[in-house]
Amino acid sequence: MEKISISTGRRKEFIEITSKIEDIVRKSGIENGVCFIYVPHTTCGLTINENADPSVRRDIIDKLEEIVPENATYSHLEGNADAHIKSSIIGHSLMVFVENGHLQLGT
Amino acid sequence: MEKISISTGRRKEFIEITSKIEDIVRKSGIENGVCFIYVPHTTCGLTINENADPSVRRDIIDKLEEIVPENATYSHLEGNADAHIKSSIIGHSLMVFVENGHLQLGT
Amino acid sequence: MEKISISTGRRKEFIEITSKIEDIVRKSGIENGVCFIYVPHTTCGLTINENADPSVRRDIIDKLEEIVPENATYSHLEGNADAHIKSSIIGHSLMVFVENGHLQLGT
Repeated sequence: MEKISISTGRRKEFIEITSKIEDIVRKSGIENGVCFIYVPHTTCGLTINENADPSVRRDIIDKLEEIVPENATYSHLEGNADAHIKSSIIGHSLMVFVENGHLQLGT
Repeated sequence: MEKISISTGRRKEFIEITSKIEDIVRKSGIENGVCFIYVPHTTCGLTINENADPSVRRDIIDKLEEIVPENATYSHLEGNADAHIKSSIIGHSLMVFVENGHLQLGT
Repeated sequence: MEKISISTGRRKEFIEITSKIEDIVRKSGIENGVCFIYVPHTTCGLTINENADPSVRRDIIDKLEEIVPENATYSHLEGNADAHIKSSIIGHSLMVFVENGHLQLGT
């Protein structure tokens, strides 16, 4: 297991970590297998996107904000109820197959 | 593979199963690995939450009910269409890394 | 790793792939393990449904369309922003336990 630490600059942010994960896969020397990616923060989710166009990330953030607005009324009073709900919708873990040493990502 | 049976008392409920899973991990003697958790019911989902404040669970249930109301009009006439949709949104499986014999959960 | 190619006939479609996956599990000869299913397309998601009643699939598609309409205004101009968002909500990967050579699916 390898760990990556990511710092976020904004309250809602989409951070591309693919190259960091590809580095880990390359260093592992694993040619064929499954790469499991898991975020232990309950206010953070993981998803896959081709990232050809950063506008898709904008759209995903906007839609999540529309479904689960930051400033709606929630029972949880820490002010991050929306982040907990958003991350439960997106999910906290991912897997990607590794073939010939590379993550099998699509478009 | 170990099985846990959970009884639900209400139609919509958030049930904490972390300690049951930690027991299984401990009994397995596995120090480092990946714990896969899967629910074979198509009207039940799995998510991770720190559970420091039960109000977060309330907020997640309320938001899911707002997005997918129990009493809207659905094609499926068994009366549990909303539960099928909710569980597809949340997801039926999870994984958590195990390190030094413990689930690596965050906050 | 085995690959399945699926052709879609409509813009939004729910395609049952369980029997294809069961074939792969059977041919693999694996009796007990975990089956990982991953779709490398960022406009496609994976979920589990008992499929006893096709109306559930209809309801899931309808609800996703209601939450993320095809024809809303998005930043991404390729015309498939909704598909990217829908697939991030549903998720791109799944796992199912295999026991005695069969996928452990529920109802």
